[in-house]
Amino acid sequence: MEQRYSSELFERAVDEFSKLPGVGRKSALRLVLHMLRMDVGAVDGFADAMYQLRHNVNYCKVCHNISDTEVCQICSSPSRDATTICVVENIRDVMAIEATSQYHGLYHVLGGVISPLDGIGPSDLQIQSLVDRVGQGEVKEVILALSSTMEGDTTNFYISRKLSDYPNVRLTVLARGLSVNDELQYTDEVTLGRSIVNRVDFDARSAT
Amino acid sequence: MEQRYSSELFERAVDEFSKLPGVGRKSALRLVLHMLRMDVGAVDGFADAMYQLRHNVNYCKVCHNISDTEVCQICSSPSRDATTICVVENIRDVMAIEATSQYHGLYHVLGGVISPLDGIGPSDLQIQSLVDRVGQGEVKEVILALSSTMEGDTTNFYISRKLSDYPNVRLTVLARGLSVNDELQYTDEVTLGRSIVNRVDFDARSAT
Repeated sequence: MEQRYSSELFERAVDEFSKLPGVGRKSALRLVLHMLRMDVGAVDGFADAMYQLRHNVNYCKVCHNISDTEVCQICSSPSRDATTICVVENIRDVMAIEATSQYHGLYHVLGGVISPLDGIGPSDLQIQSLVDRVGQGEVKEVILALSSTMEGDTTNFYISRKLSDYPNVRLTVLARGLSVNDELQYTDEVTLGRSIVNRVDFDARSAT
Repeated sequence: MEQRYSSELFERAVDEFSKLPGVGRKSALRLVLHMLRMDVGAVDGFADAMYQLRHNVNYCKVCHNISDTEVCQICSSPSRDATTICVVENIRDVMAIEATSQYHGLYHVLGGVISPLDGIGPSDLQIQSLVDRVGQGEVKEVILALSSTMEGDTTNFYISRKLSDYPNVRLTVLARGLSVNDELQYTDEVTLGRSIVNRVDFDARSAT
């Protein structure tokens, strides 16, 4: 490739930034020019944070969420409800649910969903460790919080079969329906149809 | 600040990315999640490129452009015209002019423009070293390629005074006029006025 800048180190830094998703050549140039003007200590801190992230972030050996310790803060917290496990696809889903402040149980990060087309089978995911956790007897409910796609549904079905030895454990899925603030006329018909079938009693206290 | 993620190293990496200009909290999260999935070697390369950039990039001792060597590739190239110096504000301007492939002389990077309101005076800029270069006697033309602002005009004036000891050195500024593809009716009146005053002979060979 032809060299564009008068410094190879500069060129390399721009190249590295442009490899990141959503960062074009012009943004990369802007970021590197900013880096050049930053304090030496600030740049060192940035570089070190990236190094530490990739080398020293652990995954909780219980729920497989990211963690700095062997068992993550959520799994080891006495204030969380250890009888409920919410099964999610990835760590981003944990962050999304935590951000709602509505859930107080534990998690189980599968690391993906069953997708034969992508070559992802049950053994590539953390399904056996979920079955083992349920097998310890403390769990009363498993919430299947996977995407509403064919792959998500397949994975839900597979997990429900695997957990059929524990009929006392309640299996639930997230409620599907209208989004808050959705207008009826713009809602797709499958969602609208389901929200009619799964209608719930009106509760004046929670009405907005 | 409240911790948002279950790993402090993860939190720190997101914090570092969000400090960059134009990178919000959500983009930072997306980039860090991507980093976690990258090869260890690729992340090391990224971190090292940032470290090297800040610690080892030099500035050419002649023109003050970024360089990996004491004198940059442009200043040391025998194919460049050493009798012409183009004075610019910063290294980004060098890149912009180099990208046009229309200029074959040397550069001089001032490091800014005179701006009393920001506390930037002539001694904060590389003006004396420009005068020294011209004083060596080889230079025939100095192109003042600064922004068309009050600060740029002030700096142009200051430099022209400083170079008044060398009346044989031609001082030029960039042509101002209509942009290529500009439509007359949408051009601001100052630019349009100047382009009438400074009209040039029609050259059928360069007409597009």
